[in-house]
Amino acid sequence: MPSDKPFTSVAILGLGAMGGSLARALSGLEAGPAVIGWSPVEEERTAAEAAGAVISAPAEWQDAVAEADLVVVAAPLKATCRLISSLASSTPIETTLSDLASLKAPLARVVAEADAQARWVGSHPMAGTEESGFSASRADLYDGARVWCVADPSAAPRVKRLHALWASLGARPAAIDAEEHDRLMAVASHLPQLVSNALASVLAQNHVSPDRLGPGGTDMTRLAASSSEVWRDLLEHASPDLGAGLRALAECSEQIADLLERGDFDGIERLMKETRAWRLGT
Amino acid sequence: MPSDKPFTSVAILGLGAMGGSLARALSGLEAGPAVIGWSPVEEERTAAEAAGAVISAPAEWQDAVAEADLVVVAAPLKATCRLISSLASSTPIETTLSDLASLKAPLARVVAEADAQARWVGSHPMAGTEESGFSASRADLYDGARVWCVADPSAAPRVKRLHALWASLGARPAAIDAEEHDRLMAVASHLPQLVSNALASVLAQNHVSPDRLGPGGTDMTRLAASSSEVWRDLLEHASPDLGAGLRALAECSEQIADLLERGDFDGIERLMKETRAWRLGT
Repeated sequence: MPSDKPFTSVAILGLGAMGGSLARALSGLEAGPAVIGWSPVEEERTAAEAAGAVISAPAEWQDAVAEADLVVVAAPLKATCRLISSLASSTPIETTLSDLASLKAPLARVVAEADAQARWVGSHPMAGTEESGFSASRADLYDGARVWCVADPSAAPRVKRLHALWASLGARPAAIDAEEHDRLMAVASHLPQLVSNALASVLAQNHVSPDRLGPGGTDMTRLAASSSEVWRDLLEHASPDLGAGLRALAECSEQIADLLERGDFDGIERLMKETRAWRLGT
Repeated sequence: MPSDKPFTSVAILGLGAMGGSLARALSGLEAGPAVIGWSPVEEERTAAEAAGAVISAPAEWQDAVAEADLVVVAAPLKATCRLISSLASSTPIETTLSDLASLKAPLARVVAEADAQARWVGSHPMAGTEESGFSASRADLYDGARVWCVADPSAAPRVKRLHALWASLGARPAAIDAEEHDRLMAVASHLPQLVSNALASVLAQNHVSPDRLGPGGTDMTRLAASSSEVWRDLLEHASPDLGAGLRALAECSEQIADLLERGDFDGIERLMKETRAWRLGT
């Protein structure tokens, strides 16, 4: 490499909350890479340019990636799979490909089909917001966040560079296997999302409006405002562990209702003590 | 009243996160009331004095309330009922009695038994933290928070003064009936708490540690760290609506699991759109 920077020119395809935040963060680095952006939405391209998150945002993604040594796709899962596949066949082998999708096994399959295993390092930052669009992006979104990185062993040199890029943003990159990642996400990410939807649904049925909630109920239903489009894509590829997790949650809720009805408050206190210990790591 | 302040001397019995925050907020007011505190725990009394949250914190609560024209009990529910009962018989009728407990019907009963309806204005601020103790208190805890106020019609003049006190802290007081309040809390507050415990329990069963969660899962399990002592007291008096809410949550979780297994992603998207609209108030 001509420089000690992990990458000198980064193209980000998708300028929503995730891609926009990456663009802002990279552009905010001292001596960071040149950042070019693209979005299918003209307003997002204009907003990202106006905010200084990108040095340019051409109307066609092909123009955005032409000079890049790293392309990061920041789109819903299906669009990400399509773009990674197109990028594998239309960019030089030196160009490293990455993405921010929340599931990795479907992408690993697309990459294998395109015979691009040595060029792809998938990223999944454990950061986000229930809001969407460039207006929801912020430069510090990834600061302190765990970023799961998934790659074939043949991509090892690129993994090192991508880890360095994430670390330069204050994120905490770590390697994980695609299948293991997706199983973990079923319970650590998809399950909390759907439990928030389920709770919101019960509150709505009970005619409790969100302004009647305290900070606890507000936090517990925040994810219920998430984009159904983004989630539909993910849930179509979710691990069967998600359904099992929902059924375990249902069973636990029924058990607590039984304890309440039986007046077994020792049982409830025991459960609360156990979950408190889990949550505080004690 | 000799002054246009709602109260000139406030005694706060209990200096944990809730009582300590009230003490800090009142002591921070320009020309606010004198604030005297009491806690059964010596360290809390010392900490509150050292922080300037109270002008004094005697070892016996009887000494704390002697000069007060308002006494606010900030303790778990059972202890609050005991203290309000004792205060009703041991303080002059001019002393207004209040509390911060999360359920109001049990207190209204205690107040009625003590024939103190004209003196008691219960408060329930929709604010709090999963942490406990004076170290978790903060001066701005009640800023912007809804505070439900429960009182007998005969206490109307005191209600006005208590509303003024809460408003002086930036809180939003509103009157509500005790029974209606407790039914609302079963779904708006107790249900989200127990759903957080249930989710934490499922994650623990799946050997997912809290540091594996993203911001969504972290928010969804924050309440699981709440004090089981405080909650046990509340749950013993919770409305039957809570058990019904837990069963509705279980049913909704099972329905989502069914939709996933059937591959009915239209159904899931519909549910997510409905809960998003509810959450955003659209």
